[in-house]
Amino acid sequence: MKEYQLTLRSILERAEMLFPKKEILSRTATKYVRYTYGDFARRTRRLSSSLQALGVQRGDRVATFAWNDHRHLEAYFAIPCMGAVLHTVNIRLPDEHIIHILNHAEDRFLLIDETLLPIIQRIQTKLTTIEGFIIMTDRDALPSTDLYPVYSYEQLVADADPSYDYPLDIDESAPAGMCYTSATTGNPKGVVYSHRAIYLHCMTLGLADTLGLSEKDTVMPIVPMFHVNAWGLPFASVWFGSKQVLPGPMPTPELLLNLIAEEKVTISAGVPTVWIAALKIMEQKTFDLSHVRALICGGSAAPRSIIEKFEYHHGIPFYHAYGLTETSPLVTCSRVKSDLETLTKDELLDIRATQGLLVPGLEMKVVGANGPAAWDGKEMGELLLRGPWIVDEYYKDERTQDSFKDGWFHTGDIAVVDSEGYVKLVDRSKDVVKSGGEWISSVDLENEFMAHHAVFEACVVGIPHAKWSERPLACVVLKDAVNQPVSKEELLEFVGRRFAKWWVPDDVIFLTEIPKTSVGKFLKRALRETYQGHYTSDEEVVQ
Amino acid sequence: MKEYQLTLRSILERAEMLFPKKEILSRTATKYVRYTYGDFARRTRRLSSSLQALGVQRGDRVATFAWNDHRHLEAYFAIPCMGAVLHTVNIRLPDEHIIHILNHAEDRFLLIDETLLPIIQRIQTKLTTIEGFIIMTDRDALPSTDLYPVYSYEQLVADADPSYDYPLDIDESAPAGMCYTSATTGNPKGVVYSHRAIYLHCMTLGLADTLGLSEKDTVMPIVPMFHVNAWGLPFASVWFGSKQVLPGPMPTPELLLNLIAEEKVTISAGVPTVWIAALKIMEQKTFDLSHVRALICGGSAAPRSIIEKFEYHHGIPFYHAYGLTETSPLVTCSRVKSDLETLTKDELLDIRATQGLLVPGLEMKVVGANGPAAWDGKEMGELLLRGPWIVDEYYKDERTQDSFKDGWFHTGDIAVVDSEGYVKLVDRSKDVVKSGGEWISSVDLENEFMAHHAVFEACVVGIPHAKWSERPLACVVLKDAVNQPVSKEELLEFVGRRFAKWWVPDDVIFLTEIPKTSVGKFLKRALRETYQGHYTSDEEVVQ
Repeated sequence: MKEYQLTLRSILERAEMLFPKKEILSRTATKYVRYTYGDFARRTRRLSSSLQALGVQRGDRVATFAWNDHRHLEAYFAIPCMGAVLHTVNIRLPDEHIIHILNHAEDRFLLIDETLLPIIQRIQTKLTTIEGFIIMTDRDALPSTDLYPVYSYEQLVADADPSYDYPLDIDESAPAGMCYTSATTGNPKGVVYSHRAIYLHCMTLGLADTLGLSEKDTVMPIVPMFHVNAWGLPFASVWFGSKQVLPGPMPTPELLLNLIAEEKVTISAGVPTVWIAALKIMEQKTFDLSHVRALICGGSAAPRSIIEKFEYHHGIPFYHAYGLTETSPLVTCSRVKSDLETLTKDELLDIRATQGLLVPGLEMKVVGANGPAAWDGKEMGELLLRGPWIVDEYYKDERTQDSFKDGWFHTGDIAVVDSEGYVKLVDRSKDVVKSGGEWISSVDLENEFMAHHAVFEACVVGIPHAKWSERPLACVVLKDAVNQPVSKEELLEFVGRRFAKWWVPDDVIFLTEIPKTSVGKFLKRALRETYQGHYTSDEEVVQ
Repeated sequence: MKEYQLTLRSILERAEMLFPKKEILSRTATKYVRYTYGDFARRTRRLSSSLQALGVQRGDRVATFAWNDHRHLEAYFAIPCMGAVLHTVNIRLPDEHIIHILNHAEDRFLLIDETLLPIIQRIQTKLTTIEGFIIMTDRDALPSTDLYPVYSYEQLVADADPSYDYPLDIDESAPAGMCYTSATTGNPKGVVYSHRAIYLHCMTLGLADTLGLSEKDTVMPIVPMFHVNAWGLPFASVWFGSKQVLPGPMPTPELLLNLIAEEKVTISAGVPTVWIAALKIMEQKTFDLSHVRALICGGSAAPRSIIEKFEYHHGIPFYHAYGLTETSPLVTCSRVKSDLETLTKDELLDIRATQGLLVPGLEMKVVGANGPAAWDGKEMGELLLRGPWIVDEYYKDERTQDSFKDGWFHTGDIAVVDSEGYVKLVDRSKDVVKSGGEWISSVDLENEFMAHHAVFEACVVGIPHAKWSERPLACVVLKDAVNQPVSKEELLEFVGRRFAKWWVPDDVIFLTEIPKTSVGKFLKRALRETYQGHYTSDEEVVQ
């Protein structure tokens, strides 16, 4: 007999069967919609039925361009449960990337929030595969648009056959979802999630030692549903029957805090900037956050100080987690082991500020310049992962071979692991400085330079060096070069106090500005190009 | 690329990597052994290595005949992780069944606790496939035995290659374990668990809404490791890094309570008789059970009164769970939904006394005489299950076709489901009385008869009936037939007060004893045979 297949159908049907009265609160462009899992499942079946009537077949990609609301949640299940592929498109990408990924995925239909119509309208002539635009609006009439052909989401749902039954013969390895991730250079890379991967990842979110997602929870995903499936929370919440709060378009920190207080949210998840903004508001105004049992922070490293503020000033449990688009995303979670609970506050914060412990189900290796790195909290290596929700390729993309080797996903993240197994990211592999067969963390050096009172920004890059292969070069912007000048020697001496001698950059270059990417990250590639001859030119002359 | 395979290796290696210092306390025949997951993993690898040296190959069955201790736990991983099949043999079966299942499984090696040697010695000449007996003893020398060939477990472990690496190419659908379950008639039926089934079942044990097994837990499985893998607890505890307490041979209720108190056990699991015995001791003596967060009760229905005593008299959370050998076993768990928490104590106890809610991952149907039963708490049907840890056949057994049909496992359990989805077992399908196209619960009737002050025991069976197909017949043993006689009419009137007229048995037969099975259950088959003509003889004469 064929093995029982792990698909999203059974997840949807469990909520439908066991939790038809549980609530979903959804904020849309014009109102709040409060309905039940029963209502949700009925509308989801209708949506599938209408997509089938439009001609959507197994394996077809159907894209969404939407905020976190109930319609997006319906699409999350309607599309994969019928055998099609839910392609969530990042609404914040530049136009050329949105055009590329819609064409590259060969999406047949596109579901669009009304508020996001302008973006799609201005690129529509470049879209080569879309056969229909389905507009999600609260209004009775469709907004005027020159998109063609257009359908009303609500009309489709209203007109559909309510008795649609989901197919039972979908293979667990069939694609259920896809998401594109930005690349350092070139177009975004597509990642496809199988039913099996989403199913097993959901299960992990329910484990007591990860997020412990439960029927008793009220879950509010702040992380967008167009970003790695909102970290899997909408899928898992349906499975476990948790109440959901979907905060809709462009939520402000104040709106989010009000929702947490009013809806008695118990668990929420977002990137550090969201939580930093929330802390600022919490200093000015009081919110009843007493029901919160976990705030999850991921996407990029959470500064130790915000963990401290939430945990110790506000008494709100705050967990650092780590993952990537390629990893569905949950990889690690910074839970404190029971036998470490007696450590000092400072030691505990050090642990909580790491990316955490590998969650059950995954395997990891940290491979440095000389093979597997020691678990001593010091030796650096690239983090390699494998497991049931780590993807094994980029969709139709030659860059697959750079990141997927020997059954392991090479994250490109440089980590150290301490003796207890806590993973701490220290750099990106393209940025780590490879000097004399050893690795130097550019991020650690930058942080130390920026700890100097006169330094505004510092960026460290590895520059080719004849003897050492690479040596670090520091590019520094001073706060006030005229009134608060500081010498190269003073800075190097300052940094030298905390690091081994061979870590200290050979030179410092003072700049008025560090070049940056569109999202404000240091454009290290540009600095490496500009200064590529900085350390080798003399030797080359000699040769 | 081949899908990442869900096997036990990664479960073992996670504990080895992340929790090498966590403790396992094991009670053996002569002492307590306290060691760590690091020690455990090293000995497990050595055991695999020595089994390989003995010639154990992939797919070979290796049997264990043992109590809950650390050596059994080592075998739990050493055998499946090397690709062989862990066959846990129920030490309490009659000799002829033990002989049958060892031969039927074609076990090549048998690991035996020293205290259980007499059983194997007296049946050894009947064993057709065993090539070696591995004796697990605390003593330096092997006990004298005429088993041949014999090996010392400790010597094998001591002599083995410590650097054994587990194979990476084991398929998740490969068999990892097997267990035989008693049948109503004939030999026990074999059930094979794949790596995948055990892996996914373990994951479910960690879900917040089932047992929520965690690294913070100290887990004591009282349910024997020879019985459905001790409900999966040893596997899951290793995965999550929970401290384990293994209570060894023939633990008394007092010993168990002392272990819970002294080792600060947080979660334990056993059958109702264990908990009933524990309650009795707790009335006489005080134990510090303040660390216990969950006692799990399964195997057979827990009386409402013991749930009440643990929860309300002792303040100890007590959860009713349900499963079968064929279901790995967890199927349902009687957690109270968050929106029902405001019910009265009596209503809550009613819920807690049901078998509970279906756990995430499984699907169920309850199919009665006229198709799917309504979820009204009344309509009866057979419980059908499917899901990733429900097996799909009996091992080399023609009885497979009776229980596995159309992709569903037919449990043989008759259930009602209430409007919230709580499952309550009311009978076995072979015992339910099928009268005029409707079903009558023999168990419900028996309980009502036994509620009468004069009744000692009552057993209700369905007897063929020309018009109604079957009608219930009550067989009653009075407490004192001489001094406390009671008439048939009085008993039927008593029972008639609580049930619909057509439920009430057509006749009562007074017996001095109800025939019973070897484990003390009513032998209903014997009564059905004895009285098979009781209702039809008159009609037959007329025909």
